Amino acid sequence: MRVYFDNAATTAMDERVIEAMIPYMREHYGNPSSVHSHGREVRTAIERSRKKVAELLNASPAEIFFTSGGTEADNTALICGIQTHGIQHAITTPMEHHAVLHTLEESAKKGMVKLSLVEVNNQGEINLDHLEDLLKSNPRSLVSVMHANNEIGNINDIHAIGTLAQEYDAFFHSDTVQTMGHYAHDLKTLPVDAIVAGGHKFHGPKGSGFLFVRKEKKITPFIYGGAQERNMRGGTENVIGIVGVAKALELAYEDMSSHRKHVETLKQRFIDQLNENIPGVAYNGLSADMDRSLYTVLNVSFPPSEENSGMLLFNLDLNGISASGGSACSSGATVGSHVLRALGAKAERDSVRFSFSRFNTTEEVDYTITKLKELYSVIA
Amino acid sequence: MRVYFDNAATTAMDERVIEAMIPYMREHYGNPSSVHSHGREVRTAIERSRKKVAELLNASPAEIFFTSGGTEADNTALICGIQTHGIQHAITTPMEHHAVLHTLEESAKKGMVKLSLVEVNNQGEINLDHLEDLLKSNPRSLVSVMHANNEIGNINDIHAIGTLAQEYDAFFHSDTVQTMGHYAHDLKTLPVDAIVAGGHKFHGPKGSGFLFVRKEKKITPFIYGGAQERNMRGGTENVIGIVGVAKALELAYEDMSSHRKHVETLKQRFIDQLNENIPGVAYNGLSADMDRSLYTVLNVSFPPSEENSGMLLFNLDLNGISASGGSACSSGATVGSHVLRALGAKAERDSVRFSFSRFNTTEEVDYTITKLKELYSVIA
Repeated sequence: MRVYFDNAATTAMDERVIEAMIPYMREHYGNPSSVHSHGREVRTAIERSRKKVAELLNASPAEIFFTSGGTEADNTALICGIQTHGIQHAITTPMEHHAVLHTLEESAKKGMVKLSLVEVNNQGEINLDHLEDLLKSNPRSLVSVMHANNEIGNINDIHAIGTLAQEYDAFFHSDTVQTMGHYAHDLKTLPVDAIVAGGHKFHGPKGSGFLFVRKEKKITPFIYGGAQERNMRGGTENVIGIVGVAKALELAYEDMSSHRKHVETLKQRFIDQLNENIPGVAYNGLSADMDRSLYTVLNVSFPPSEENSGMLLFNLDLNGISASGGSACSSGATVGSHVLRALGAKAERDSVRFSFSRFNTTEEVDYTITKLKELYSVIA
Repeated sequence: MRVYFDNAATTAMDERVIEAMIPYMREHYGNPSSVHSHGREVRTAIERSRKKVAELLNASPAEIFFTSGGTEADNTALICGIQTHGIQHAITTPMEHHAVLHTLEESAKKGMVKLSLVEVNNQGEINLDHLEDLLKSNPRSLVSVMHANNEIGNINDIHAIGTLAQEYDAFFHSDTVQTMGHYAHDLKTLPVDAIVAGGHKFHGPKGSGFLFVRKEKKITPFIYGGAQERNMRGGTENVIGIVGVAKALELAYEDMSSHRKHVETLKQRFIDQLNENIPGVAYNGLSADMDRSLYTVLNVSFPPSEENSGMLLFNLDLNGISASGGSACSSGATVGSHVLRALGAKAERDSVRFSFSRFNTTEEVDYTITKLKELYSVIA
């Protein structure tokens, strides 16, 4: 059996997304900037995609900019947000994805901003009082706090954080890569200035994504070149990526609650069986709290074990099970996780992130538990 | 009949490229950064693609970085070239693609560099003496000169320019978007520090491309986030784009001379028939000089005509012929061409760029000539 439990790293594409993309590989190949018929039919597809994304998120099409993925979208929001709005101070958390953390660290190194980190506790919960202190002493900051953490699954209250940011006149960016397509976002009521998406996190293509920037907080381009994306991103559009990410989001919204229910069942079953079968098992962050963590992510802290120490992912892989240790985008990489470090996780315990999608089954959960029992030599 | 003569804007994908990409949409969906089996099979495809591109260009795989296209690659080379090497002066030409021109103008506006433009004559030929003067008074500059112009097709002698740049210790970037896949590049002998490619210009996918940076001139990343592309570009890789651009380049090199011969025949036939049938026809830049212009591009200056003035592209489109007026990436756009402006082109003459690919036929040339004769009311 081959089991894919690394859906926070990337997901399998939905066949309906592939079918939507293929005509733009075969028949409709014009450049969307061309005004002739070959170009117009492709331009129409892009603008239809933009309109669809905007509708689903309750935003305006003029606020949606297609990018090469979540990381480029994060870089754009942060770097161009700082530059456009003359921001001199940035606030983020030590739990952010490197697309945010490294970008802000680099901006600080270049002298563009001073950077402050909000305190988090050993469950990965953000200290909102500390955030308010930072905002108070640094009004007009840029605040970047992810909607949900890609490694431990903690969901942050970005409504509360955004309200706080507004109060102190901050530019609020949230890395929503892990929640887009899995939770509904209503941008009319959510107090954020910029959010992002990577299509491959919700059964769309890799290399696709988008950036939302609120009209009132308009920013300058990150990539210069042409008038594409309403002068916001130079470069011939990745048409199949755009068609794909919009289709994937459409499918995600069509059936979000039943997908969620299905995946929640898998996660709960996984937790129950782990608790029952692996003595000493624990969970990182709020991962096992069904109400306060992503239904797609479970970050398990396994008890010390000589046989599996440092080898658990490898042992799972040998059994056909794909899961990850570190971040979504360096899953399984042997460099330690900066998120688990920030939580003060114990080195003698192996941590594995299992992340689920609507394509997973209860059989896969059961198979994985069986293999874990074998690895931890538990007789059933 | 529907004729696509806008191949400098974008090309139709080769079916063999599509076939190479589809398995990475359907079966192999892992994240290339993941060390488990789902990830490894995709990582292998990326590194195989990198090796293939490097081999074809006689470069090292460590010098090839995949991007979202030529424009991102240009932005990366220019902005990060300037930052990494502490460059304070940049030299370019007024004929560059906006991916270069706007990026450097923006960098100058931000105070990162001073910008100088090399003189060009009314044929679009670069004044190399002027370039040398600029280099003499500004050693350690960044020089960016395109290999061939996307609008008028002029081929610049980047070997001579690179040699000059080396002499004055400059960082030499060349926008090779229009020549990649159409001309052979030997990076062991070509004195450039950085060149770029956009896959969709040679029958690969839109949203794909790469940047070559010579090992000795290594630069810092443009997009921060993860360790992808050997720490040079954060963000989950556009796997299908990477597989596609490498396959497209492979196919281009496999049969370059016969493709070239075929397209040259079309271009020569087009010129001959225009000369024969449209009195007063002329050509912009070196476009009609078969040895000094792209074999793929013909930029025609039509005689003044009341019926077609400002309407020629529209009239061609009505007859099913797709061609362009302005730049590759804003083909047919009604904003005037900055390249033709730099040449001092006369406003009363309509200029149209016809650009060809190996998928075009002599029948398409003949049909287009017939329609042009009708539009210019020439009785055959």
